[in-house]
Amino acid sequence: MKHDKDIDGLIALMARLPGLGPRSARRAVLHLIRKRDQLLGPLAQSMQRVADTARECLNCGNVGTADLCAICADETRATGLICVVEDVGDLWAMERAGVFKGRYHVLGGTLSALDGIGPDDLRIPQLLHRLSAEHVTEVILALNATIDGQTTAHYIADQLEHRDVALSSLAQGVPIGGELDYLDDGTITAALNARKRF
Amino acid sequence: MKHDKDIDGLIALMARLPGLGPRSARRAVLHLIRKRDQLLGPLAQSMQRVADTARECLNCGNVGTADLCAICADETRATGLICVVEDVGDLWAMERAGVFKGRYHVLGGTLSALDGIGPDDLRIPQLLHRLSAEHVTEVILALNATIDGQTTAHYIADQLEHRDVALSSLAQGVPIGGELDYLDDGTITAALNARKRF
Repeated sequence: MKHDKDIDGLIALMARLPGLGPRSARRAVLHLIRKRDQLLGPLAQSMQRVADTARECLNCGNVGTADLCAICADETRATGLICVVEDVGDLWAMERAGVFKGRYHVLGGTLSALDGIGPDDLRIPQLLHRLSAEHVTEVILALNATIDGQTTAHYIADQLEHRDVALSSLAQGVPIGGELDYLDDGTITAALNARKRF
Repeated sequence: MKHDKDIDGLIALMARLPGLGPRSARRAVLHLIRKRDQLLGPLAQSMQRVADTARECLNCGNVGTADLCAICADETRATGLICVVEDVGDLWAMERAGVFKGRYHVLGGTLSALDGIGPDDLRIPQLLHRLSAEHVTEVILALNATIDGQTTAHYIADQLEHRDVALSSLAQGVPIGGELDYLDDGTITAALNARKRF
């Protein structure tokens, strides 16, 4: 292709975004150029601002534009209650539900023997440190229901065994709106074992 | 959601790109923040550069970062041969095929009675001007095979009737790799009518 060098460069960078391939990157860049005043300029400035300031929260590992993320800096949120998640995407998913009002701790992944990821590669030592520093009374494990996620949950549970802190994990069962016919055996088994009085 | 204000703003802008919704915009922004040195910073600068310099080529209507686009400024390309396309995306598609070595003329849309788009809303007067200014000997109509595209093609053909210039349009027929069973009746009819000796 023989476009402009700058435009080609922009297309190549856009194509590296998850969910965009070369074709959709071209379409997006063309759209951006058509709307260069309303969209391309503001987007460039917004990206530059985030690129200049984005960092991991020193406390919980969430992303933000200050040393403490918006959640850790929010004094209206309960302290003493920490929800442990694998990554920032999971934290955002929890926040969208909008029901949890405590603090988070982002591990930055899961234990994985295959990938050689041990406890010190995650933010598990920081979690143990926060338990005493923040007078934590309950830790909620909101890890993915995958093998690695559950391995990590069990490891953290072991670490907390002799600490004076309540430990819980998200309930497993039938998702809201879910149809039994489409659920896997594991989910149905978990839902049956955890059945409760109607 | 209670993220950082700057990050929320970036997600909202990204969600306005074609092909990205709120969910994929969040995923893209998270990816950008993780790769802020390799990707977010360069992307912001690339966007700013294009936002500052992108404009329509004064001659053909292609987008570029100078008054004359890369194609119009390329002296190795044939003059006297103009390929008329609806929009820049179509021009890029022609360029990807890489077989056309003349110049382009981007109309910026098609005639449309429904949307109130007449000849003066497109770049048809500029096309007529170029015919004499550039000593054009052949005009190739590469308009989409839609009702509006073909209406526009006929209008341009009428305008060129008494000019000393050859007029052609892209062949219609079976696409390369196409299977007859999946083709519509119109395409098969066109391919049959335009059949050629084997």
